[in-house]
Amino acid sequence: MKKSVIHFDRPPTIIASASVVGAQEKKGPLGDSFDLYDESDRFGMNTWEKSESEMQRMALSAAITEAGLHPSEIDLLFAGDLLNQCVGSSFGLLSFEIPYCGLYGACSTAAESLLLSSIAYSAGAAELCAAVSSSHNCSAERQFRFPVEYGGQRAPTAQWTVTGAGAFLLGAGGRIEVVDVMVGRMVDRGISDVNNMGAAMAPAAIDTLTRYFRETGRAPESFDMIVTGDLGREGSGILCDLLLGEGYDIRKNHVDCGKMIYHIDEADMHAGGSGCGCSAVVLASHLLKLMESGTIGDILFLGTGALMSTMSLQQGNAIPGIAHLVHLKTKGEGGEQA
Amino acid sequence: MKKSVIHFDRPPTIIASASVVGAQEKKGPLGDSFDLYDESDRFGMNTWEKSESEMQRMALSAAITEAGLHPSEIDLLFAGDLLNQCVGSSFGLLSFEIPYCGLYGACSTAAESLLLSSIAYSAGAAELCAAVSSSHNCSAERQFRFPVEYGGQRAPTAQWTVTGAGAFLLGAGGRIEVVDVMVGRMVDRGISDVNNMGAAMAPAAIDTLTRYFRETGRAPESFDMIVTGDLGREGSGILCDLLLGEGYDIRKNHVDCGKMIYHIDEADMHAGGSGCGCSAVVLASHLLKLMESGTIGDILFLGTGALMSTMSLQQGNAIPGIAHLVHLKTKGEGGEQA
Repeated sequence: MKKSVIHFDRPPTIIASASVVGAQEKKGPLGDSFDLYDESDRFGMNTWEKSESEMQRMALSAAITEAGLHPSEIDLLFAGDLLNQCVGSSFGLLSFEIPYCGLYGACSTAAESLLLSSIAYSAGAAELCAAVSSSHNCSAERQFRFPVEYGGQRAPTAQWTVTGAGAFLLGAGGRIEVVDVMVGRMVDRGISDVNNMGAAMAPAAIDTLTRYFRETGRAPESFDMIVTGDLGREGSGILCDLLLGEGYDIRKNHVDCGKMIYHIDEADMHAGGSGCGCSAVVLASHLLKLMESGTIGDILFLGTGALMSTMSLQQGNAIPGIAHLVHLKTKGEGGEQA
Repeated sequence: MKKSVIHFDRPPTIIASASVVGAQEKKGPLGDSFDLYDESDRFGMNTWEKSESEMQRMALSAAITEAGLHPSEIDLLFAGDLLNQCVGSSFGLLSFEIPYCGLYGACSTAAESLLLSSIAYSAGAAELCAAVSSSHNCSAERQFRFPVEYGGQRAPTAQWTVTGAGAFLLGAGGRIEVVDVMVGRMVDRGISDVNNMGAAMAPAAIDTLTRYFRETGRAPESFDMIVTGDLGREGSGILCDLLLGEGYDIRKNHVDCGKMIYHIDEADMHAGGSGCGCSAVVLASHLLKLMESGTIGDILFLGTGALMSTMSLQQGNAIPGIAHLVHLKTKGEGGEQA
């Protein structure tokens, strides 16, 4: 039979994680849970792109330190970001000298890097993997829209690119297991409004979730939490409404990292956070802490991404979305494991 | 012990491949071995970026047809290209509706997609994987250097971005096996001349090859061919010279896809071909044909990439290189298999 859900006989665990954020994220409701931040968003660098690289370096370094490891002990590194040619990752992670697979999954990169790490571990291709992703508000805004100094007005459906980097180490011995994963398909429903990424990505999340529920036979309410990356307020509403039409009610246990990361009343945040860093830092800090404390034990984590460029938009293409799923479970949860 | 060479107990085979090229590549010494080409380089599209996407679509479609399969039978798709946000791949491959992992490995993408497909197959995460990559001379030149119409003069060490897309299907039952792979590390030796990518990538190829020879204990001359992606004349010379200093003589059996794809005397080709499409189409056509005919049976294929952007250069960074290795062997070769 055709496989879509990839189940691991040899499931990896998350053995360490770290998050690095900017000032705006630190001020948000999850501010206390992040590991490192810089009030200036610069991280000691003189360009925004170098600041983003530095966040990746700091995040991976913090995760490695937390695990009491040396970079040379890590077999494989999966990383990506939003910058042209993914230079946030290449320059940020160069100094670690770890065998490196560069990814481009737009804002789904945190989930993509976690699922590829899990596949590599499960294959025995690596005993220890690192998964890193980032975005920076100032490098993303000037690349995709306007330089921040321009002060362009933003639409109510627009999201705010998170300044943040998240790093995860996967291997044996941790408490939180990657039970299974599902690779997303590209879905294009004709949304071409760059100020409404949530609407562009929601159909991909619907595609992945309906395929997952059907194949596993599990009901949405059987999970403690169904987390999407950065659909924001607009995309989250679309997701919940349309899934209800498919017979799946996720309204009670759905949360979205883009909705969680900023205070709702912050005018400039509009529909919420976005960017590769958004789901990466919320998972690396807040969500994993909730799992470690036993508050939640069984969650679906979906990275959602919009696979466009400024040029693809200028040339009249719509915005295809993608949503990768990672199923995380605290060991011992549900009495299945010791 | 720390793993670097990833050996497969369940090795995948290449069950089909296809190559699509432009006019310049068709005119070259390997012209007859490519599957499809378009004299106009446009592939029926009105922008170069869409032409590049169309090449990817045609290549994957041709490989699927060759294997007598339907796209829905493919479990996982790994693809990438050089365009900002890898839109060559996302728009080219959208219509297949195959679960998709986007990659950014610059010109090493063909090898990166082959090795990740192999890991996924070996893990049992997929029974059938597709690996696709592309570059287009006109979309790359205007993104990284100047629009072709500008007629900018090119340095003797400069390479010519190949217009081409290659697609591979990996699964059970083919004659050519992926025996093992090695993921490259990023190596930055301070080369910052964007007109000399060969010099920037050669140190990464040296790093991967020396690690591989040391770990496996195999001598360079025990392979029928050691293939690099697109070091061109400049980078190939550096590779052979510096490896000789390390005690490895690959001068007799080293070939470079960038050196093979164009006639040496074509003035505009300078140091040879480059781009994700270069190694992809040379492997998908010429090299696999040599393996199928029994001319060569045991080769190392290295994808070489330069992980920079125009902005990273403008901000004073050098050009880090990376080289991923894929070890291919014809089944039955060396008497090890039936």
